[in-house]
Amino acid sequence: MNKMKTEIRRLAVYSSGGDAPGMNAAIRAVVRTASYYDLHVFGIYRGYEGMIDGDIVRLDKGDVGNIIHRGGTILKTARSTRFRTPEGRKLAYEALVANDIDALIAIGGDGTFTGGKIFFEEYGIPVIGIPGTIDNDLFGTDYTIGFDTAVNTAIEAVDRIRDTADSHNRLFFVEVMGRDTGYIALNTGIGSGAGAILIPESSIDVETLIKHLEKTAKRQKLFSLIIVAEGNENGNAQKLASEIRDRFPDYDPKVTIIGHLQRGGAPSALDRLIASRMGFKAVEAIIEGHTNKMVGIQNNQMKLIPFEDAINKSKDIDKDLLRMAEILSL
Amino acid sequence: MNKMKTEIRRLAVYSSGGDAPGMNAAIRAVVRTASYYDLHVFGIYRGYEGMIDGDIVRLDKGDVGNIIHRGGTILKTARSTRFRTPEGRKLAYEALVANDIDALIAIGGDGTFTGGKIFFEEYGIPVIGIPGTIDNDLFGTDYTIGFDTAVNTAIEAVDRIRDTADSHNRLFFVEVMGRDTGYIALNTGIGSGAGAILIPESSIDVETLIKHLEKTAKRQKLFSLIIVAEGNENGNAQKLASEIRDRFPDYDPKVTIIGHLQRGGAPSALDRLIASRMGFKAVEAIIEGHTNKMVGIQNNQMKLIPFEDAINKSKDIDKDLLRMAEILSL
Amino acid sequence: MNKMKTEIRRLAVYSSGGDAPGMNAAIRAVVRTASYYDLHVFGIYRGYEGMIDGDIVRLDKGDVGNIIHRGGTILKTARSTRFRTPEGRKLAYEALVANDIDALIAIGGDGTFTGGKIFFEEYGIPVIGIPGTIDNDLFGTDYTIGFDTAVNTAIEAVDRIRDTADSHNRLFFVEVMGRDTGYIALNTGIGSGAGAILIPESSIDVETLIKHLEKTAKRQKLFSLIIVAEGNENGNAQKLASEIRDRFPDYDPKVTIIGHLQRGGAPSALDRLIASRMGFKAVEAIIEGHTNKMVGIQNNQMKLIPFEDAINKSKDIDKDLLRMAEILSL
Amino acid sequence: MNKMKTEIRRLAVYSSGGDAPGMNAAIRAVVRTASYYDLHVFGIYRGYEGMIDGDIVRLDKGDVGNIIHRGGTILKTARSTRFRTPEGRKLAYEALVANDIDALIAIGGDGTFTGGKIFFEEYGIPVIGIPGTIDNDLFGTDYTIGFDTAVNTAIEAVDRIRDTADSHNRLFFVEVMGRDTGYIALNTGIGSGAGAILIPESSIDVETLIKHLEKTAKRQKLFSLIIVAEGNENGNAQKLASEIRDRFPDYDPKVTIIGHLQRGGAPSALDRLIASRMGFKAVEAIIEGHTNKMVGIQNNQMKLIPFEDAINKSKDIDKDLLRMAEILSL
Repeated sequence: MNKMKTEIRRLAVYSSGGDAPGMNAAIRAVVRTASYYDLHVFGIYRGYEGMIDGDIVRLDKGDVGNIIHRGGTILKTARSTRFRTPEGRKLAYEALVANDIDALIAIGGDGTFTGGKIFFEEYGIPVIGIPGTIDNDLFGTDYTIGFDTAVNTAIEAVDRIRDTADSHNRLFFVEVMGRDTGYIALNTGIGSGAGAILIPESSIDVETLIKHLEKTAKRQKLFSLIIVAEGNENGNAQKLASEIRDRFPDYDPKVTIIGHLQRGGAPSALDRLIASRMGFKAVEAIIEGHTNKMVGIQNNQMKLIPFEDAINKSKDIDKDLLRMAEILSL
Repeated sequence: MNKMKTEIRRLAVYSSGGDAPGMNAAIRAVVRTASYYDLHVFGIYRGYEGMIDGDIVRLDKGDVGNIIHRGGTILKTARSTRFRTPEGRKLAYEALVANDIDALIAIGGDGTFTGGKIFFEEYGIPVIGIPGTIDNDLFGTDYTIGFDTAVNTAIEAVDRIRDTADSHNRLFFVEVMGRDTGYIALNTGIGSGAGAILIPESSIDVETLIKHLEKTAKRQKLFSLIIVAEGNENGNAQKLASEIRDRFPDYDPKVTIIGHLQRGGAPSALDRLIASRMGFKAVEAIIEGHTNKMVGIQNNQMKLIPFEDAINKSKDIDKDLLRMAEILSL
Repeated sequence: MNKMKTEIRRLAVYSSGGDAPGMNAAIRAVVRTASYYDLHVFGIYRGYEGMIDGDIVRLDKGDVGNIIHRGGTILKTARSTRFRTPEGRKLAYEALVANDIDALIAIGGDGTFTGGKIFFEEYGIPVIGIPGTIDNDLFGTDYTIGFDTAVNTAIEAVDRIRDTADSHNRLFFVEVMGRDTGYIALNTGIGSGAGAILIPESSIDVETLIKHLEKTAKRQKLFSLIIVAEGNENGNAQKLASEIRDRFPDYDPKVTIIGHLQRGGAPSALDRLIASRMGFKAVEAIIEGHTNKMVGIQNNQMKLIPFEDAINKSKDIDKDLLRMAEILSL
Repeated sequence: MNKMKTEIRRLAVYSSGGDAPGMNAAIRAVVRTASYYDLHVFGIYRGYEGMIDGDIVRLDKGDVGNIIHRGGTILKTARSTRFRTPEGRKLAYEALVANDIDALIAIGGDGTFTGGKIFFEEYGIPVIGIPGTIDNDLFGTDYTIGFDTAVNTAIEAVDRIRDTADSHNRLFFVEVMGRDTGYIALNTGIGSGAGAILIPESSIDVETLIKHLEKTAKRQKLFSLIIVAEGNENGNAQKLASEIRDRFPDYDPKVTIIGHLQRGGAPSALDRLIASRMGFKAVEAIIEGHTNKMVGIQNNQMKLIPFEDAINKSKDIDKDLLRMAEILSL
C-alpha cells in the first residue's frame, strides 16, 4: 500500500512546523527535479494552513533561481490547528482537487509527517516527507535539514562570548535550542570546547557541575562556558545561573539565550547539500510510486523510511560523544 | 597642569571595565607607536586590579603581532573595588614605581578615566585615556572603540531572526545592550529596518507600539522586529512581550536577548581603524606632555578631551535619526 | 537654476554603474520617505538602459519591506552606452514622460551623475544623486555607500589568509579593488595590520618593499601580508609577486585577488545607516526644489554638493593615515 | 607488526603539509586525551622540519585551552625536503630520542603519512595519522579535517558574488582549490547553485559549456556562476574566461580566484567535531599499540586505515552527485 503506481502529473510542495535553514534549497531541488521529469509543480504557502485556504501557486524553475542561499522558507510555514480536524482536512482536500494536485512533498518534522500520513489514509494523496527541523531528532536520518546550520550559528555565538569570557575570567551559561533533545547542545558543546554540556539525556546536578568547574579551574582555565539545552531538567540557563549565584556566591555567571537566532541565517554547505539531495530523492520517490515515507540520509546514502518509524521510533544520543566531550573539557 | 614636560621613558597600557572589540588594535598601536618613539612599553593585566597586584609585563612589537583581528583584550580586564580605596591606589602606585613606569594609557569608559584622574591627582603619573566601550556614550568622541562592531553583531543577529520571522509572520522583540543609552539600539534599529525602536531616551507606551504595529500590518508587512535597549523604561524585552501577550492575545511575541554576544567577535573595519588611530594619538599625546585627557575622534579628526568633560558631560542622542527611523519603518 | 520650485508628484529612483552593498537600503529609504510625503515612487531597472527601454515599475512601501539587508540592488544596474548619445537620451525622456515622472534620484558614481546632469540640462527633469560606489572616491562626502562593507569584506578575507600565512611563515599579496584610488587598500591595510600597503597615490618600488620586509622579519614577524590596490603602478599583485620571485628567490609569495567578492554580501551597519540617511535626504532635497546635486555626509551631517564638484574635484588620500600605517607595521 | 604492545609514555604531535582549519581542534583533542590517559605530550613545530631541528615543546592541557576555534595550526606547518633524505630522518630520530618521545601523531595528508611510514620502518617509532587537508582526497575517510570549512568559505564567497552577478546579469567564473580532485568544487557548486561545475574528474569543453549556459539563459536566468577546480583540464578560470571572450564576444565573464582564503578562518562545526573525534581516537589507537594507520571516519564511525591504503588507493568522486548537480542547474 505504501507503493502505488498511478502516474503523477502535478506535484505540490510545502513547508510546515518550525522553519529551518536549508528548506529553500530543498524547495529548489523539488521544483527543478520535478521539472526535469516533466511534472508540474506547485507551492503551498504556510503549510497545512495554506492548503486549507487554497493558497497554492505554480512554481517554475525560474521562481527558485536565487533562493538556495536564503534562510527561512519562501513558502512560509505555520502550525495548523484546523488541519487536526476532519473539517480542516476536507477543505484541504478540496483545495488540492481544485488544483488537480495528485502528490505532495512535505518538508518538516514529525507533526508535519503525522498530518501527511492521516491525510493519505483519508484521501489517498501520496506524500513523501523531507526532514526539515533544526533539532535533528528524527529517527531514520543522520541529519535533518537545518541542524548543521543551527550548530554552526550557536558555535559562532559561543566563539564571540569566548572573547569576552576570556577577557573577564567569567562563567557563562549559553542556552541553545532543543526542547526534548540535546543534539544541538552536544554538538555545540564539543565544537565550542565547552566546560560542560547539560542536556535532557544526561542530567547532572549543580554540585557535580561546580565540582567539575573547580577541577578545570585548578589548571588556570579561568573562564568557563557551559552549554545548556533549553529542555535541561535542571532548569534552563537562567535558573541554573541563579542557583549557582545563591550557593556559590564567588561565581557571577552570565547568561545568553541564543534563541531564534539559530533558526535563521544562510544555510551551511552541508545543509544545502543534503537539502538538495533530499529534494531530488523525494521527487524520484514520488514518481516511483512511494508514499508515506520520509527521505533520510544514512551513511551518506539516501533512504526511504516509513512515516511510522520516523514519527514513533526515537534516535538515541551518542553516549561515546558525551564521554569524549567530558574528557576533552577537563 | 594638564600639560607637563617631563620626559616619558616607560609607558604602561591597560584595559579596564567592560571589554570591547578593537581594544587589541589599540594595544597594538600603543606598543608599536611607543616603540617607534623609543619608549619602553609595558602591559598591565586586568586593569586596576593587576596594577595593584603588580601584574605587569614588558610588551615588545612582536607581542602584538597577531592580535589586531582578535576580539576581547589580551591584557584582560576587570572591575576593581580595591582601586576605589586609598590603600588600593597606594599599592598600585608602588607597583608602578617598582617597574619605573612614568606614564599610563588607559583603555575603557568613564569609570576607567575617573580612576586615572584621581590617581594622577594623588600621585602625579600622567595618564591618557582611550574610549573603549561598546555603548558609545562618552562625550567628546563620535565613536568609542567597539560600538561599530557591537552594532554590526546585533544587526547580523536581527538579520537571522528576520529569516525566521518572515517565514512565520511573527512579532519579535530583540533586546540589545545599552543600560543607560540607546545608541546601540538606535543604530541597530535603523540598520535592521526594525518596526520600532524602544530606547531610554524616547519612551513609548505599549498602546502606541501596538497602534504603530497595526498601521504597518495594514500594508501586509506581516512580521515585525522591535529593537529594545536593555534599559528601556517600559521594561526589558521579556516584560514588554508578556504585557503584549496579556493585552493583545492575537500576538505571540518571541524574545531574543543578544547579550554578551555583542561584546565579542573580530572587530569591524571601523573599530580597527579608530582604535589604531587612538592608540597612535594617545602615545603622541603622552610624549607631548598631556595628561588627564581622553583621545576622541570628531569629524574624522583626532582630538584631546579633558577627562572631566568626557566623564561629566553627556552626549545626546540624535533626534533627527529617531524621527527618520520612525518614518522609514512605516 | 539648481533650485526650482515646481511641485514634484512622481519620483523615479534607479541605480547605475557598479553595484554596491547598501544600495537597497537607499532604495528602501527613498520609497518610504517619498510615500511619507505622499509622492508616487517608481523604480527604473538597469539604470539608464532601463530608462531608455521604459523598464519602469511602481514601487510601494511593501515592495521594499525585506531588502535592507540584501547586497546588490533590486533595481539591477548596468552601464549604458546608448545614454551617451542624444538619441538614447531622447528615448529615455519619452519613457519618463510616458510615466509622468517629474523627478529622478540616481544612485551611483561620477558617471551616473554626469549622465543625470546632461539629462537635466537637456530636458529639465530635476535629479538628485546618491553616492553609491565601493571606491569612496567622490568629492564632497566622507563615505560612499558600499565602501565600509567592501573594506570589511576585504579585511575578513585577509584575516583568513592570516591564519594560513601564520601557519606557514609566508609572504602573501592580497589585491583589493580600487582602480584609480587607494581608499579600500589603505583602510584594508590598516585594519588588517598589513606589512605594507601599495596604492596608486604612494608608489613604492620593489627594493624598498623588500627592505621593509626584511626590517620586520628581523623581529620574528615571520609572515607578511601586503595589500595591493588593483591600480598600483608597480603592477598588480601577480606582477609584483613574480618580480619578487625573480629577484629574491628565497621568498615564494602567494597571491589572492579578492575581486568581486568585495561588491557583494550583506551591507555593514554603517552602510545601511548612511544609505538610509542619504535616501531620506535625497527625497527631501527633491521636494525642496534642488537639482543637480549629490547628497553627501560630512562630519556626520547631511550636505548637498553640486554635481560639478562631486564629479570634477578630487578627494585626496589622508597622508597622515599612510604614515601611521607604516609606523604600525614596523 | 602494525600492532605492537610496548607501553607508550611520551607522545608527540605535529602538523605537516598544507594547513587546514580544524587542525587546532585535533591538537587540542590529542593533548587532552593523552593527559587523561596520563601520557606526557609534546608538540613538534613545523612538521618534519621542526622534528629535524629538535623544535619540540611540552604541551599541557592549558596550552590548548583557547585554540579550538582558531584557523591554521598553533604548531605551524612546513614541507620538508630534508626529511626525504636518510640524513634528515636520522637527525629527526636523534631529536626524538633526546626528548624520549616514543610515539607520534601526524596531522596532514598523504605526504605526511608517507614520511611517517618510512620513518617507522627505519626507526620503529609508532605513528598514527590524522587526515588534515582541505582537499578531502584521502581514501578510507568520508571527511578530512578542513574540507567542510573550505567548502563553507567558498560557498560564502560565491554567495557574495551572486549579489553582484545578479545585479549585473553577468557570467562569473569562480576558481576554488583542488589541484587533482574536484571535491571542493563539486560541493561548492551544489551548495551555491552554480550553473556549471568544471572538475578534473569530468571534463567538459567550452562549446558544451556555452550550450548549457544558453539553455539556462532561455528561462531568464540572466546570470551564471561557474565553479572551476584549479586543476580543471580545460585550464583554470582565467584561461576559460579568455577563451569564452574570444569565441563568444557577447559574454564578458569575470573571474575570482578564491585561493588561500579557503585555508583560513574559524573551523566549521563539523570540522571541529571530526577533528576532536580523530584526535581522541588517534591517542587511543597509539595506546592500544597500533601504528602506520590513519584514523578515518566512515558512516559516522571511527576507523583505522593502513597507511598504504590511505596513500595509494584513490577515492572516487560521486557520479550521482555530479548528475544531480547538472539537473538542478538547468
